[in-house]
Amino acid sequence: MKMEKLILNQERNVSLVTMIQEVGGEFGSVVKRPAILVLPGGGYAMCSDREAEPVALVYAKAGYQAFILRYSVGEHKDWPNPLNDYEQAMTLIRSKAEEWHIYEDKIAVIGFSAGGHLAACAATISKNRPNAAILGYAAVEKKILDMLHPDLPIPGEHVDARTCPCFLFAARDDRTVGIENTVNFELALNNENISFESHIYAYGGHGFSTGEDSLAISKMCSRLPHWVQDSIEWLGDIFGKFGDKAMTQPACPGKVGFDREPKLSVYCTVGHLKKQSPETLAMLGPVFAQLDGVIASYKEKGMDISGYVQNERLQDLLQIIKVPQEQIDELDAGLTQIANIF
Amino acid sequence: MKMEKLILNQERNVSLVTMIQEVGGEFGSVVKRPAILVLPGGGYAMCSDREAEPVALVYAKAGYQAFILRYSVGEHKDWPNPLNDYEQAMTLIRSKAEEWHIYEDKIAVIGFSAGGHLAACAATISKNRPNAAILGYAAVEKKILDMLHPDLPIPGEHVDARTCPCFLFAARDDRTVGIENTVNFELALNNENISFESHIYAYGGHGFSTGEDSLAISKMCSRLPHWVQDSIEWLGDIFGKFGDKAMTQPACPGKVGFDREPKLSVYCTVGHLKKQSPETLAMLGPVFAQLDGVIASYKEKGMDISGYVQNERLQDLLQIIKVPQEQIDELDAGLTQIANIF
Amino acid sequence: MKMEKLILNQERNVSLVTMIQEVGGEFGSVVKRPAILVLPGGGYAMCSDREAEPVALVYAKAGYQAFILRYSVGEHKDWPNPLNDYEQAMTLIRSKAEEWHIYEDKIAVIGFSAGGHLAACAATISKNRPNAAILGYAAVEKKILDMLHPDLPIPGEHVDARTCPCFLFAARDDRTVGIENTVNFELALNNENISFESHIYAYGGHGFSTGEDSLAISKMCSRLPHWVQDSIEWLGDIFGKFGDKAMTQPACPGKVGFDREPKLSVYCTVGHLKKQSPETLAMLGPVFAQLDGVIASYKEKGMDISGYVQNERLQDLLQIIKVPQEQIDELDAGLTQIANIF
Amino acid sequence: MKMEKLILNQERNVSLVTMIQEVGGEFGSVVKRPAILVLPGGGYAMCSDREAEPVALVYAKAGYQAFILRYSVGEHKDWPNPLNDYEQAMTLIRSKAEEWHIYEDKIAVIGFSAGGHLAACAATISKNRPNAAILGYAAVEKKILDMLHPDLPIPGEHVDARTCPCFLFAARDDRTVGIENTVNFELALNNENISFESHIYAYGGHGFSTGEDSLAISKMCSRLPHWVQDSIEWLGDIFGKFGDKAMTQPACPGKVGFDREPKLSVYCTVGHLKKQSPETLAMLGPVFAQLDGVIASYKEKGMDISGYVQNERLQDLLQIIKVPQEQIDELDAGLTQIANIF
Repeated sequence: MKMEKLILNQERNVSLVTMIQEVGGEFGSVVKRPAILVLPGGGYAMCSDREAEPVALVYAKAGYQAFILRYSVGEHKDWPNPLNDYEQAMTLIRSKAEEWHIYEDKIAVIGFSAGGHLAACAATISKNRPNAAILGYAAVEKKILDMLHPDLPIPGEHVDARTCPCFLFAARDDRTVGIENTVNFELALNNENISFESHIYAYGGHGFSTGEDSLAISKMCSRLPHWVQDSIEWLGDIFGKFGDKAMTQPACPGKVGFDREPKLSVYCTVGHLKKQSPETLAMLGPVFAQLDGVIASYKEKGMDISGYVQNERLQDLLQIIKVPQEQIDELDAGLTQIANIF
Repeated sequence: MKMEKLILNQERNVSLVTMIQEVGGEFGSVVKRPAILVLPGGGYAMCSDREAEPVALVYAKAGYQAFILRYSVGEHKDWPNPLNDYEQAMTLIRSKAEEWHIYEDKIAVIGFSAGGHLAACAATISKNRPNAAILGYAAVEKKILDMLHPDLPIPGEHVDARTCPCFLFAARDDRTVGIENTVNFELALNNENISFESHIYAYGGHGFSTGEDSLAISKMCSRLPHWVQDSIEWLGDIFGKFGDKAMTQPACPGKVGFDREPKLSVYCTVGHLKKQSPETLAMLGPVFAQLDGVIASYKEKGMDISGYVQNERLQDLLQIIKVPQEQIDELDAGLTQIANIF
Repeated sequence: MKMEKLILNQERNVSLVTMIQEVGGEFGSVVKRPAILVLPGGGYAMCSDREAEPVALVYAKAGYQAFILRYSVGEHKDWPNPLNDYEQAMTLIRSKAEEWHIYEDKIAVIGFSAGGHLAACAATISKNRPNAAILGYAAVEKKILDMLHPDLPIPGEHVDARTCPCFLFAARDDRTVGIENTVNFELALNNENISFESHIYAYGGHGFSTGEDSLAISKMCSRLPHWVQDSIEWLGDIFGKFGDKAMTQPACPGKVGFDREPKLSVYCTVGHLKKQSPETLAMLGPVFAQLDGVIASYKEKGMDISGYVQNERLQDLLQIIKVPQEQIDELDAGLTQIANIF
Repeated sequence: MKMEKLILNQERNVSLVTMIQEVGGEFGSVVKRPAILVLPGGGYAMCSDREAEPVALVYAKAGYQAFILRYSVGEHKDWPNPLNDYEQAMTLIRSKAEEWHIYEDKIAVIGFSAGGHLAACAATISKNRPNAAILGYAAVEKKILDMLHPDLPIPGEHVDARTCPCFLFAARDDRTVGIENTVNFELALNNENISFESHIYAYGGHGFSTGEDSLAISKMCSRLPHWVQDSIEWLGDIFGKFGDKAMTQPACPGKVGFDREPKLSVYCTVGHLKKQSPETLAMLGPVFAQLDGVIASYKEKGMDISGYVQNERLQDLLQIIKVPQEQIDELDAGLTQIANIF
């Protein structure tokens, strides 16, 4: 492993620590590595050392190329300075992907507290988006952000279809950044069908970083340090795991639901397909009739499954009622040529 | 361990399975045990076996007295039949606390899906409240509840200061009970300062129960089965752990924040104390003046900490600015005689 | 789950507790279950409750049919009474395999302390052998056994090719049953190429059972309770995991090495094959010549790999030097008709 | 963290990579750190990169100062070159303890395969001994060592009272370094009452290092990667955990039993004390008489506890039979002035 410190902006005191591990040789099956960019917290007043190297080491240990960005803080904190620093760092990393043996579509960002705000901005409003974001007790609500700086954007308002999958963690009893910061951001992700995982621990306060023994967190519950290994396994689900000369296929898609994709498909829910154009509805008429028949037969037995049917994917239902797969495929071929109305 | 099946209501087919373990003898340090009541899911159409014994065994293994309630479903599902079944079961358990060696103030309830709705109702609107509630992919939003039965109460609307601490888990990609069910209930708990822990796993769908190998869950992420052990440790934080002839002191209070307690205290936040009666404000005048001085001195340095001060507990701030503990204690003695206005 | 207590021998106070779980119905993919028989410890003076139900619950929770044998102790402890009790119990379980939904070739035994002696006897000298054995701080050395009863067999002296795979655990600082009991039994298993797993924890003393909080173990290291989940996963490696209507293929063979099987095979090591009859050697002559060539070429480079070659399986080496698989298969077809000399 | 590569011996190509983390500042409670020296494997033909940085990162993440020694191999492997390299490295680390913020009595060594041999030699025959040793599938038996080099010392023959606590791990099915290497070394440690922990996994072969996903181990059981976190927790038991400005008291003593300490004590076993000089026996006469009385009373009930009594610590027995603590302390004061005969 080679560890270096690059100065990104002398004037604003912005630096990037790089931890680059070898590929090939004795690591023969590894030809490239995924990467992660660490954004420490510190209320835009500082970049906390406790959320810098101790965090980067976690992912370096897991085989990731790891980077720590010390972005503009204190007198240089005016927005969008920190975001610009992020853009510069991510652009540099992607441009050096070859030299640094990095899969350029497998680069995560992790941020804590104010760094979590920056990470959430990277996931929602940046030009050079990360492929996954880990948000640790991130400050993302207006009430707390206004205390840090009056001009900060509210990431939850900008979640869109391009937002990457997110992993969120915090402690319930955080009194610096209230738990509604994490919970409301989950709702924003949910509204856009973005995949996420979330762990809110009963107690641990604010700023616990990895919860490692050596960080001397005063009071935290036994589950809290689990976010570290859990986040590694989650990244393995989103990026794929290390395989032979390539990463394996991701186990978890970045989206939950396909109702917001540009084109229609049999993966859309019935409820969503029912809101499409008359032409589409005509095309779907026969299968909808079949489903209505099933709903009616349940109603006779005193059971209303119409709500359930609305929420299910068309494909799943057609499979349940034994529509032949070729017929489903044919339907899908038709749907995927139709622009989605949403 | 003694396992029995008690009939609670022959007509409605309601039963209670009891798993009672010994105390004393070779379990000399154990004089009583905490308990848990399992409420299986099944859309109020059935009580799923997959969420019954396999779940009770988890807590029996951890030393709990375990109970499974098969409540009114199908033709008997009309509300409040299931809630009445719960009340009957909990009343029976508490009345037999002596005979069954149970701490009557350490009885949890765990429910899944529709059983999670029932558990959430137990936590919010029941007469005989549980001391902790574990909610697994619980159906608690109007949209989904209306599909089950038109008259079901919405538990999130009834969270109050008496609501017990909750542990919530679900999978992000649950399409039967959307993840907003879990997330919005967390917001309701947050609004009332109720302690909770929450784990939302990237994928695992609906109805995964313990995620045990033998349940053959088709597709779930590696973290998902962790809720089982995590819930045991969380209960240990809320109820205390098994100690010598008694449970140890709980590590986690049931409330986060004390702004909603019947009486005031130095544990209230400054922001909350500022909304009290003129008499109270007069009493707090001198310490508020001190705090205002600190805020002003920070403002001179260009930093606005007034929002931070609002959210902190009075005691913590007074300790930071080195007010002698006796003086704080004296203040507290005064405050705890004043009814809280909220 | 149905829990019953069967009396096996009234006179000697021998009983079998059965915990039988359902198959089919909502457990549709489960048609049978593996099983485990628990043998509590207690120095053949008693059967400890602490190593009975709390242990059975572990495996019941994992989907196993679980049994607790309270065997002959105290005035009835004369050998082979306890072994006879075991034989009776195992014979009963296997005879009821159909009724109790049990895979009769997937029945483990777990014993603690003196019960570990009995479990080790089951694995080595019983007529009705278990398919896997878990030995917890088992007393198996003459020095300690003689203190319990003068006539007890020493299981380590009877490990043979039919001995099942074993999982051993104990605490290093056990002063009742010294750690050499566990370590020397591992050597005996090693001598017969039996597969095993072993966990010796730095401290925890004697009699810690599952290490569960409710058992109030006075002083044990944080790793100690891991044996519980580890043993479940190990059983999954040995028996296979729950699959659809069947257990999956075991990941771990019961033997390490095939040099002691009745017939030869390409899985034998080169060193072992070299000790066979002249006819066998003649048959293997060409491949041995190839290997000698490789050894010679390494020697030229100053590296002696002859020892390594002796210890490797013939098949693995032939694959490394790119002998075509058909040729290896042909060789194996020949070898498997030849009786092994060992 | 600062990462550097120091050349220890240019001619033999010996180097030391240092990973030094900060103390003080934001790590205010940390004034020094424990340390670990990594000795990669490679059959004394090479130093494997797979057992170098990936291992050092594990302990760096846990807050340790980490070092990687690439010792003399290949043409420079003649003994004692590698041991001399170790001595040089350890001497350097201890001499720089102040500058590098290291507790000089809390320095572990970890070695794999041939590096495990070197680590075991460090623990047994080096001049500058480590304070704990972690041995991963270490080659320590004559049979395998002779294949590496004819003159290598056999560490198991040199275990003595000064040998540090050891943590051993390996896979049962290791065919390069047979499992007897690990098991027999445990017996050697046991003979000298040295504290140890050991994990032998059912399968994983040789050379699995941390078992991290990115190392692409072909076939290993699910428990195998647990040695990593387990070894960190074990070091915390042996060295103490990070506390406020100091490490906490170790939870696990380095010795099991005190029968081999230079002086006697009430912590010696009764059996050992009985072999001491007539003067000592005279001094112990009254308490031995008391114990004999207890043994006799049990014999009347048909129970022989004399063996048990031999193996127990005098203090524990005296406490059980309610000898007043002052009397025990007085006895201890006398015993600790007497040289131990063993």
